[in-house]
Amino acid sequence: MQLKHENTNVRTDTHMDLAIMGYGVVGSGVAQLLHQNYESIVARSMQPSLRLKYILDLRAFPGDPYGHLVIRDVQTILEDPEVGIVVETMGGLHPAFAFVLACLEAGKSVVTSNKELVAAKGYELLEAARAHNVNFLFEASVGGGIPILRPLSQCLAANKITEVAGILNGTTNFILTRMFEDDMPFPAALRLAQENGYAEKDPTADIEGHDACRKICILAALAFGRHVYPEQVRTEGISSLRAEDVACASAGGFAIKLLGRAVRLPDGRISATVAPALVPHSCLLANVSDVYNAILVRGDAIGDVIFYGRGAGKLPTASAVVADIIDCGKHVQHRKFFGWDPADPAFVAPAEEDVSAFYIRTVCALAFDLEAAKAALLRQFPGVRWLERPGAAPGELAFLLPPAVESEARAALAENFDVQPETVLRVIEF
Amino acid sequence: MQLKHENTNVRTDTHMDLAIMGYGVVGSGVAQLLHQNYESIVARSMQPSLRLKYILDLRAFPGDPYGHLVIRDVQTILEDPEVGIVVETMGGLHPAFAFVLACLEAGKSVVTSNKELVAAKGYELLEAARAHNVNFLFEASVGGGIPILRPLSQCLAANKITEVAGILNGTTNFILTRMFEDDMPFPAALRLAQENGYAEKDPTADIEGHDACRKICILAALAFGRHVYPEQVRTEGISSLRAEDVACASAGGFAIKLLGRAVRLPDGRISATVAPALVPHSCLLANVSDVYNAILVRGDAIGDVIFYGRGAGKLPTASAVVADIIDCGKHVQHRKFFGWDPADPAFVAPAEEDVSAFYIRTVCALAFDLEAAKAALLRQFPGVRWLERPGAAPGELAFLLPPAVESEARAALAENFDVQPETVLRVIEF
Repeated sequence: MQLKHENTNVRTDTHMDLAIMGYGVVGSGVAQLLHQNYESIVARSMQPSLRLKYILDLRAFPGDPYGHLVIRDVQTILEDPEVGIVVETMGGLHPAFAFVLACLEAGKSVVTSNKELVAAKGYELLEAARAHNVNFLFEASVGGGIPILRPLSQCLAANKITEVAGILNGTTNFILTRMFEDDMPFPAALRLAQENGYAEKDPTADIEGHDACRKICILAALAFGRHVYPEQVRTEGISSLRAEDVACASAGGFAIKLLGRAVRLPDGRISATVAPALVPHSCLLANVSDVYNAILVRGDAIGDVIFYGRGAGKLPTASAVVADIIDCGKHVQHRKFFGWDPADPAFVAPAEEDVSAFYIRTVCALAFDLEAAKAALLRQFPGVRWLERPGAAPGELAFLLPPAVESEARAALAENFDVQPETVLRVIEF
Repeated sequence: MQLKHENTNVRTDTHMDLAIMGYGVVGSGVAQLLHQNYESIVARSMQPSLRLKYILDLRAFPGDPYGHLVIRDVQTILEDPEVGIVVETMGGLHPAFAFVLACLEAGKSVVTSNKELVAAKGYELLEAARAHNVNFLFEASVGGGIPILRPLSQCLAANKITEVAGILNGTTNFILTRMFEDDMPFPAALRLAQENGYAEKDPTADIEGHDACRKICILAALAFGRHVYPEQVRTEGISSLRAEDVACASAGGFAIKLLGRAVRLPDGRISATVAPALVPHSCLLANVSDVYNAILVRGDAIGDVIFYGRGAGKLPTASAVVADIIDCGKHVQHRKFFGWDPADPAFVAPAEEDVSAFYIRTVCALAFDLEAAKAALLRQFPGVRWLERPGAAPGELAFLLPPAVESEARAALAENFDVQPETVLRVIEF
């Protein structure tokens, strides 16, 4: 991680005007919060004022208190010297990337909640911010309102970070909570999440782990100092999780959580994955329910620290955006730069090389196979632990393998079972 | 909360030397951590170097790698213009207060882990820091290594804070964990804490809640903008907690946690208390075990955020001190001032005025009294909930009162029972 401290062009004007690009849930939350807590926000920003001047959106908002601020052409923002801070809450890569880059190049600081943008283009945008002596901040892109990026970069500055892991997606945590607490099968839990507005009509980005993947990329870059692209992270979602796995995990004293995880390896590389994993109830993360997020940071001095809160939602996310706006205001004459090195394909080790304990559930066709498989497994993994549960189908065999290199564990399984295991999950204890 | 932004005398020297006052557990941890992660600490501090120049202590440390830095006279530090940052890890009020004040007045920034000092003298020291254009930072004084003060003042800047509460003392949380998980009575759990080095020989400050009280004073001042003295906070410890209460709470689905708590009241005052309280297991705070701390912050936009980690210990606490050292380094030419207003006796409402649900355990001498008391209570508090447990003594009556003003609840109890209740605790659900 590089840290630089530079003086930027000193602004002598008394105004620090704002523009919001994308007036959806988060964007309108930012406008609302700026109004609601205006006095204290301005005082903390050390600016004489923070006026919302433009809202860039293609839609019209009749009746909205800020409807008169809506413009359709980003050039208006780019060409207005009074606009010092631009909030990007459009989401997606295009045109967000082009607009944000243009703002930075026009000498405006940018605050974004767009994790897709930061995960895909963070390095380039941080470099652009540095080149133009402005700030590019994105606290809201991970963990919604939970303060995590700033504590990671500032408060834990005294530590060497060895691991960052957490429940980074509220939608899937809500679904998993319903599957565990209410015995709902996955499709019903997903439907309930959609009915409650926690999941979108097309829930792919959440349930297949893409959203969590973008967030762990950002956390890994900040913690370990090098950009990590989503393509470098093996990503599994929760859509194939079966009620049988929920029952087996529960019987063994575990929850299943969708974890994003980045670990520093002894050789200097990192391991980065997104996948559902069994977490014992003795770990605090196993007790994080519903739409809440929790992020664990492990440092050489501090040990484990966990940050918990609402990982999404209009005002929580807006609250993180506004904290960044305040920081931009405070650092006009004193740029707050943080950044990281460019990505490197060799930086992220293949997930197959990871050492982990595993949960495996398989169904043997014949009772004979079952006993033979158990005997063989016991020989190969003396620490294997069988998971019994009431109501198991005949031939079901669920067990925990002691820590092993993933590729070796998989090879051993293939050797002992004629059929593919139904489920293979990591077991992670913090 | 006031925030100011001032330029201090610009230092042009290339050195930023450090002194540590008090070379005990935390002080030596700071020296160790500075050495261990020196390169990244200096890079982040934006200083060319951070040299440890003096250690002030009356003891000698033969064989210690920094033994040669030990001095006995604070004047050496005060008169050395190369010392820009002084770390105070002596503990206690005297002579820490006089030394810290002298350092600030000599134009040196001070970083402390001393919660007693900040709770008793925080306002005066922050004013002195402001008057002399230097920093006075104390992240390590609350929650050990957990980043909490900085997130409170910075990341949550967009919020109006309505409540700060938490498990602020690791020793008592360890004792309570043993009482609940291992059925230990209080004296045995305390002994175990002492054997493990978690409790001091004289454990009064921990078990009577004084330590937690100092921390909630600091949190309340930062969250609500006005100094709060320990004398203004009704403080109860855990030493009178009985195995019977543990059994009743467990049977009802509760843990008992020593909570420090400051809540903004509708009339602008705050309520501030330290006391053991029943917390339902559905709350994350109930699941915080052993020596861990957890602090909940509730904001109008962000909802509930929880910060969790080791609240004490050599390197975790040193990690927070070093983060403040880094901040002092970064803000030499750009003072990072935060402060609060002076205390006001009217600011903290009497705890008797608080509205809370209560847990009460009493022992009636006669079966007749018991039934009569139950009937009377039911008339007065239709929402009362009886707590049954196996092995209760004859005449034991444990119950939960629905939310009521404390003084009124106590009056109602006095009316219905001839004997004082054995235990009265608040029930707090987050």
